[in-house]
Amino acid sequence: MTNEVFDQHIQELHVHLTNELLPFWTTRTVDAVNGGFITHFDQYGNDSGEDEKSLIAQTRSIYTYASAHRAGYGEGTLAELARHGVDYLLNSMWDEEYGGFYWMTNRKGEVLNDQKIVYGQSFAIYCLSEYTLATGDPRGIKYARNVFDLLQKHATDTTYGGYFEMFHRDWTLNGPEAGGGDRKTLDVHMHLMEAFTTLYECTRQPLHRRKLLEVIELLVKRIMHPVYGTGIPQFWADWQVAPQIKFDVIWGWDRFTEDGVKRAAEDNTSYGHNVEFAWLLLHALSVLNLTYDLYRDQFVKSFVHAVEHGVDWAFGGVFVEGSHAGEVYDREKEFWQQAEVLIGFLDAYRLFGDERYWQAYENVHRFVMDKMVNHSVGEWWPLMTRQGIPIWTHMSHSWKINYHTVRSVVQSIRRLNALKADLNKPR
Amino acid sequence: MTNEVFDQHIQELHVHLTNELLPFWTTRTVDAVNGGFITHFDQYGNDSGEDEKSLIAQTRSIYTYASAHRAGYGEGTLAELARHGVDYLLNSMWDEEYGGFYWMTNRKGEVLNDQKIVYGQSFAIYCLSEYTLATGDPRGIKYARNVFDLLQKHATDTTYGGYFEMFHRDWTLNGPEAGGGDRKTLDVHMHLMEAFTTLYECTRQPLHRRKLLEVIELLVKRIMHPVYGTGIPQFWADWQVAPQIKFDVIWGWDRFTEDGVKRAAEDNTSYGHNVEFAWLLLHALSVLNLTYDLYRDQFVKSFVHAVEHGVDWAFGGVFVEGSHAGEVYDREKEFWQQAEVLIGFLDAYRLFGDERYWQAYENVHRFVMDKMVNHSVGEWWPLMTRQGIPIWTHMSHSWKINYHTVRSVVQSIRRLNALKADLNKPR
Repeated sequence: MTNEVFDQHIQELHVHLTNELLPFWTTRTVDAVNGGFITHFDQYGNDSGEDEKSLIAQTRSIYTYASAHRAGYGEGTLAELARHGVDYLLNSMWDEEYGGFYWMTNRKGEVLNDQKIVYGQSFAIYCLSEYTLATGDPRGIKYARNVFDLLQKHATDTTYGGYFEMFHRDWTLNGPEAGGGDRKTLDVHMHLMEAFTTLYECTRQPLHRRKLLEVIELLVKRIMHPVYGTGIPQFWADWQVAPQIKFDVIWGWDRFTEDGVKRAAEDNTSYGHNVEFAWLLLHALSVLNLTYDLYRDQFVKSFVHAVEHGVDWAFGGVFVEGSHAGEVYDREKEFWQQAEVLIGFLDAYRLFGDERYWQAYENVHRFVMDKMVNHSVGEWWPLMTRQGIPIWTHMSHSWKINYHTVRSVVQSIRRLNALKADLNKPR
Repeated sequence: MTNEVFDQHIQELHVHLTNELLPFWTTRTVDAVNGGFITHFDQYGNDSGEDEKSLIAQTRSIYTYASAHRAGYGEGTLAELARHGVDYLLNSMWDEEYGGFYWMTNRKGEVLNDQKIVYGQSFAIYCLSEYTLATGDPRGIKYARNVFDLLQKHATDTTYGGYFEMFHRDWTLNGPEAGGGDRKTLDVHMHLMEAFTTLYECTRQPLHRRKLLEVIELLVKRIMHPVYGTGIPQFWADWQVAPQIKFDVIWGWDRFTEDGVKRAAEDNTSYGHNVEFAWLLLHALSVLNLTYDLYRDQFVKSFVHAVEHGVDWAFGGVFVEGSHAGEVYDREKEFWQQAEVLIGFLDAYRLFGDERYWQAYENVHRFVMDKMVNHSVGEWWPLMTRQGIPIWTHMSHSWKINYHTVRSVVQSIRRLNALKADLNKPR
């Protein structure tokens, strides 16, 4: 690849980030009346009015603004935005009695769902650690450590390892099936890895390092498919594969049929998730100062599966999901998978030097820029047909927000710059 | 069995407990100068002078006095003795900086070994919970809960389940091999079950119940031999069986050859330990208000293995250890195995009504009363030949003390009374 090609992509991303994506948020997300963020916008960027503030959307927003500030954007305004979000999170979502953050409030800050959902707690650790790294405000890491301690006390499964994921307000375990108390997921454990990475980056505490290493081992040895290295979405407590079901408290608009049943519920993997896992693991190893060789086989499997089966060479972008062996089940295009494979394919290209990864990156980059970005307002469409026609049209709700999109662009620019630097290194 | 036979055994144990065993301790263990307990006595009951106070001996002493008080002995003097021990434990062995109890001080209370050894922490939870149950002093349960929380935070293995066992003062994990940081043991997990049982009995907290249930599942499903139901002493972190080695910090006078090597290091089980496990599990289920049927198969295996292979029908008492399949390796008689099978065989007899268990109880009871008790001072010999000639002769040191002997007699009397009550129940 040439300097010109890298520069062209960097420039395109930079314009999108600074002229479209960040302004979309900075101009409309502050709730000046109640504190925190308004997180529901329609395709025109208008407040769509849902009276809820979810732990996910508030924490992901804080992460977005803090990390973009740390990456050098916003000239201080993003740090201020992050602080505004942290104020709300600590004042209105923290449970003083039992510890941990509530799952949902209304806009005013009244608690709508007081459950302790580990998915949400992991994002609290992630964003609060990032916030302290970005701003130096010690409140962030204080609460991040506090949540970490609560998870170790209440959420670990000392029989089979890993973490239980769904709790009542008082940290007693939820019921089974849709209550989620009898299951463990790839999603939660991957996001704990992501959260513990940034926690450890901030504290450099041996305990945080050890728990990060433990969750990595668990992910690679138990949660990834033993043959294909692809992610298995759901397990029973003892790590037997469980059929994928829809939980009462969901953290995303999962792709279920209307009756909540999953097609191929026991042989299903997400290309975007697998590549996200790989680049988050690579980042974790870098923060741990460990070589990627430790998990080389895992990286090869994650990236090869996605590039061989997940990329749509005909219409661009990456498919939703398919079987572990490779057959594609769902050819639509969801926003977050595009966001994650942009980062991951650049990592794969830098790691292995294989042109296929650059081609895959370029393919998804073009699909995103040409189809997925709703340039009339600046954010991304949530879901499109294979060909790139919007199916869902909201710009944001509790499960979409800006963490995937902004992080993708910030991290892709960083990787493109690193590739350029590699190219120009004296040999 | 008849009322007379039960009464005769009860009477014999009662005399031993109140005229020999408890007076041995109440007359000589208080360290009036430095606080806490003197725990080293020779065969004549004289202070043998070792300048050490181990976490094990101090906590086990507290347990002994508190539990005997709760069982109705001592007319208040034993509660006072327990309080005296708790004062020393909290004032001189608690680490204010990192939390947890040090492993060893000298008699004055200066720290000799500041490591955090889970075996010792488990006895702290056990004795402090028992102490609050016995006396109502809230200091006990406050510190017990604190140690429990520290274990959940620092000691759990979130990759494979269970607990790591050997830590530096600051709760960073010890090195491998003799450092013990890479191994897990039956011993520690069984004593955590014992400790969490009494913790839960005292607090009735759902979290303490859940962690007790988790360690029970782990013990029955992973730590006990899949075929024989016998205890496997040591494992690697991932629950593969590890050859039994001697650790730098030991908690008992383990039966190793002089070069620290174990004969049959990978096929070795202790009859006394297996029966102790079974009755502790039965007690745990009772405190949890669960039926023993949940683990009926485990109980059958534990008790049958011991009664068929462990009991010495020729010379009396129970052997030290042998293979999982049944071959006896070591026919000597150690004190603590006798103590534990007395309780366990009474439980087995009550549970299954099989006369073999009564005969086994009677056999060991006679061996203990006729051979193992050093009646000239009142405590038990630590180790005897198969025929009942003392090999080791100390009455107490850091790893012997009075927890096995006093608990055995108190619990055996309780069970004999229950058997008698069963007998006299209207049909």
